[in-house]
Amino acid sequence: MHSARFQHFTTVSRPDLSASRIAGLRADLKARKLHGLLLPRADIFQGEYLPPSEDRLAWLTGFSGSAGFCIVLEKRAALFVDGRYTAQAKAELDRKVVQPLALASVAPEKWLEAHVRKGGTIGYDSALFTERGLAKFREAAERSGFVLSALASDPFDAIWPDRPAAPATSVVPHEIGYAGIRTAEKLKQIENKLDEARLDALVISECPSVNWLFNIRAGDVPHLPILRAFALIERGKAPRLYADRARFTPEALTSLDGIVEIVQPSSAPNDGRVEIGADLERLTKSGSRIRLDVDTAPALFSEVIVRAGGKPSVGADPIALLKAQKNPAELAGTRAAHTRDGAAMVRFLAWLESALKKGPVTEIDAVIALENERIASGALVDISFATIAGAGPNAALPHYRVTEKTNRPISPGLFLIDSGGQYRDGTTDITRTLAVGTPTRAMKDAYTRVLKGMIAISRCVFPVGTSGAQIDALARQFLWSAGKDFDHGTGHGVGSFLSVHEGPQRISKFGTTGLLPGMILSNEPGYYREGKFGIRIENLVAVEQHPVRGGEREMLGFQTLTWCPIDTRPVIRSMLTREERAWLNRYHSETEARLAPLLEGEPLTYLRKACAPL
Amino acid sequence: MHSARFQHFTTVSRPDLSASRIAGLRADLKARKLHGLLLPRADIFQGEYLPPSEDRLAWLTGFSGSAGFCIVLEKRAALFVDGRYTAQAKAELDRKVVQPLALASVAPEKWLEAHVRKGGTIGYDSALFTERGLAKFREAAERSGFVLSALASDPFDAIWPDRPAAPATSVVPHEIGYAGIRTAEKLKQIENKLDEARLDALVISECPSVNWLFNIRAGDVPHLPILRAFALIERGKAPRLYADRARFTPEALTSLDGIVEIVQPSSAPNDGRVEIGADLERLTKSGSRIRLDVDTAPALFSEVIVRAGGKPSVGADPIALLKAQKNPAELAGTRAAHTRDGAAMVRFLAWLESALKKGPVTEIDAVIALENERIASGALVDISFATIAGAGPNAALPHYRVTEKTNRPISPGLFLIDSGGQYRDGTTDITRTLAVGTPTRAMKDAYTRVLKGMIAISRCVFPVGTSGAQIDALARQFLWSAGKDFDHGTGHGVGSFLSVHEGPQRISKFGTTGLLPGMILSNEPGYYREGKFGIRIENLVAVEQHPVRGGEREMLGFQTLTWCPIDTRPVIRSMLTREERAWLNRYHSETEARLAPLLEGEPLTYLRKACAPL
Repeated sequence: MHSARFQHFTTVSRPDLSASRIAGLRADLKARKLHGLLLPRADIFQGEYLPPSEDRLAWLTGFSGSAGFCIVLEKRAALFVDGRYTAQAKAELDRKVVQPLALASVAPEKWLEAHVRKGGTIGYDSALFTERGLAKFREAAERSGFVLSALASDPFDAIWPDRPAAPATSVVPHEIGYAGIRTAEKLKQIENKLDEARLDALVISECPSVNWLFNIRAGDVPHLPILRAFALIERGKAPRLYADRARFTPEALTSLDGIVEIVQPSSAPNDGRVEIGADLERLTKSGSRIRLDVDTAPALFSEVIVRAGGKPSVGADPIALLKAQKNPAELAGTRAAHTRDGAAMVRFLAWLESALKKGPVTEIDAVIALENERIASGALVDISFATIAGAGPNAALPHYRVTEKTNRPISPGLFLIDSGGQYRDGTTDITRTLAVGTPTRAMKDAYTRVLKGMIAISRCVFPVGTSGAQIDALARQFLWSAGKDFDHGTGHGVGSFLSVHEGPQRISKFGTTGLLPGMILSNEPGYYREGKFGIRIENLVAVEQHPVRGGEREMLGFQTLTWCPIDTRPVIRSMLTREERAWLNRYHSETEARLAPLLEGEPLTYLRKACAPL
Repeated sequence: MHSARFQHFTTVSRPDLSASRIAGLRADLKARKLHGLLLPRADIFQGEYLPPSEDRLAWLTGFSGSAGFCIVLEKRAALFVDGRYTAQAKAELDRKVVQPLALASVAPEKWLEAHVRKGGTIGYDSALFTERGLAKFREAAERSGFVLSALASDPFDAIWPDRPAAPATSVVPHEIGYAGIRTAEKLKQIENKLDEARLDALVISECPSVNWLFNIRAGDVPHLPILRAFALIERGKAPRLYADRARFTPEALTSLDGIVEIVQPSSAPNDGRVEIGADLERLTKSGSRIRLDVDTAPALFSEVIVRAGGKPSVGADPIALLKAQKNPAELAGTRAAHTRDGAAMVRFLAWLESALKKGPVTEIDAVIALENERIASGALVDISFATIAGAGPNAALPHYRVTEKTNRPISPGLFLIDSGGQYRDGTTDITRTLAVGTPTRAMKDAYTRVLKGMIAISRCVFPVGTSGAQIDALARQFLWSAGKDFDHGTGHGVGSFLSVHEGPQRISKFGTTGLLPGMILSNEPGYYREGKFGIRIENLVAVEQHPVRGGEREMLGFQTLTWCPIDTRPVIRSMLTREERAWLNRYHSETEARLAPLLEGEPLTYLRKACAPL
């Protein structure tokens, strides 16, 4: 069995067991007098990446994707997934037991209304839902006459015999040279935001925000270097961090000494929900206005506040925007990380080219080789997500993760590889699609349209206040005119040695946040022909001031962070405008200039050839 | 004094009287024990266009723009306007009495919080606000400790001595040849929507929806051929229309006979609020779920439902989307109207060119000449809005309306004219910007960028489900790259012999509605250099199916409706791509082919010259 340090290739999920596991769940529900359960893929922190102990959905259904919503009723069960995962859900589920459904065609609450019996009682775990996530089910319940009922305990405690333990990794400081701003300063910024919004207290329920604020990191979640914990800020008092003191290194304790009060979770579940609940009750009774983050605060907390006679202020976590606008130290860090990462990418690409000449290379071979190049940099803490290496039709699954079962040799056509590293100075995320042999005309046409969209975003200049939703179509226009599109956003926010998916900034039709200097985003249009091939080209970019001579408005633009050749072999040259070609050639000459000093031998030769002007 | 049939050029508003009028209002408020008043520019129907009897804001402050919000406190008053009106508000207000403020820089509720005294009571007329419009003030009141109080009566009844009477124009049928679908059929579509949303009743508070549903028209509002009235649909019953029976022609009564119950408003104010209020009370007490349109239903109606022990379902009016998707008869009608209107435009443009050679021509001369050409078509019912004719710096006010005071001769540079007609078969809206003498390089550069954006929208192909917000940037990208922008949407919806501004479809960053076949929109990017010049180029377009050979997705595109030459003299040819030039040349050859049969003599010569390929 192959394996790499940070990625494994075994199929962990067991759809073959979903029939018996769901039967067990149904028995538990029946004992609670419930006729069904709403089960999101979520933990109490609403994290996108879950520790194994929290991945109830994968354990129950065998679906291993990163987003899904399950409804289990007495006679039927359905899993709702977005466009990224429709094909994968079909392939992974035992469809006799769980029906895969596309969110775009049927909303879970509508499906529930169609199948729940009148007067039925449907359970949900209020630790796993936000208030907003529950709202549409509450409306459906009112409309269709069924009852929603919060669970008294987690049914999975009983039915999941070998459930893994909750993570408890070591908490270390995130040094000021990387973090750029001290906790005391960040607290001042937050208190100003609380003053503006006339709030007395803030619950921080998004874990990366907690780690950002206290300049700490850990390893509770694969590929995400964080401590999973809540924090509470009360005006004029030391902030409270709900976490096990024993997990902090002496350096971490020293760095937090006198700045934060660490509150020990005393009882199971040991995520601090009991202690923060007590604090919320006390604050509510003293008349405090408490902000709960609309995106991540569990409904559990609203319930505590309401029970204590208060009303939470559910809204945006002010930290999200502070964290998103990277400071000069973070931007310098990410540039260093990207240069290092680009050199690793080129060494990998050079290896791949020569390996393919010698014999078959599989997707897993490629993943291991790339991970090893990143490890060889000496600075890799983790990969930033499981590498997506897709040969042939596998690349048509935008979030494909290779396993021993699905592993394919890289064959003529296109090979897509999407990967990234977690370095202490920054988080990277890069996708390249490579010609293997001679791609077909259809592949080249689509590749060139994707590239034109990616260049359009790279070159885009826009006024202050513009949101990602407003520029998303610039990346799609060339596909649209050919009757094509792709079913994911053009770009997501990226953290600083934090989550590779960070909000609120994004480039997609849902990206309503105004883009601000210092925000890091991916720029990754794609195209997927089901059963045939897939294309994605991705650089990270940072928003920066972009003054225009003779202009009247304050304009912003994107500074490219990622340096690695973009394969020009699948480009149909005549489809590029002069400006697009000029951008591509400038990108390659800068890539060569930045990476050449870090390379020698075959990789250097590869770099020079790949960066030749088109 | 010059005048035209449908447009006058006198300054009606009297900012010089605003000091005494506001003093009168303050005395009235004091007698009611109020410390201030929130005054939107609105009537009970939330109409954009108001009959003179409802234009409290213009009477009080002298501001004549079509959107504004006033707050009158004991010692100060402010008028909040959007980007279209900042310059105009500055020019029109008596700034010693009313302070003009830009909505983009200061939100009314924030300003109010800064200036209201703690514990103060601020009045509002619940007939003039939607629930949504009130929400931010309710939050501010809670935050800052002041009280909001609904007025018991309209203070303007007492303080406005010569207040005009409410309009009571004749109601006529909108013939089936124009309307395309009978009321009975429309009612079925609406009942299906009510079933889907599990609603028992629907209040129609948007007047154009009422006129659309019953296939009637009147002339209650300048340039908007409607009856101002509410209607109520109750499942399984005849719909109720709250209007004075005496206003209907015998033909209109015949057309409605057996289809609708006309309910006579019995008491002042005679807008049916008393009768519909009684019906809402009855329905609520019988347990009905009643939909109120979130955009137009007055808070008054929610209050009635809540007082009766119910809870309104505040949401989208399902009629808006039905009305927005024009049927084949409406589309055929609008094409005929646009050809007729284009011919009138060309006769006007030919006249203007020759008149300018003979001597000075003013903005008012141009407005009158254009209106007369439309009248000469024999089919004009009204203009669709007051023509915007801007010479030199006047064109930099996007919503400028010429008066005797502001009238300027058309001088070398650029001349902007934005106008439209109400014909029984369709509503038009067109803007052209014309070279007068030789425009400067800066004018030509900006003109070409605006044109490129307008062509980008015209040529745009997009997948089903795409919203106007997603394509708005295509119109702006060429201005953005020069550090420029324009402060209005790229396009608004347009009705069928109804409002020239119709929702929910729009092309702007706020346009979240998916574009659907049959929707009519304007495509009108612009550029405004304050104090210097203004540019706008506008065609109307209809959304249509746009199958792409070899594509995989169901795509939509725009069919152009407006036919009239676009001035090529200010175009910098080298800034256009080959595809853009091809679009422009095709547009002109089609314009020539469509309009030539309707023209002769000088206008025909003008058309042929103006349509020559670039």
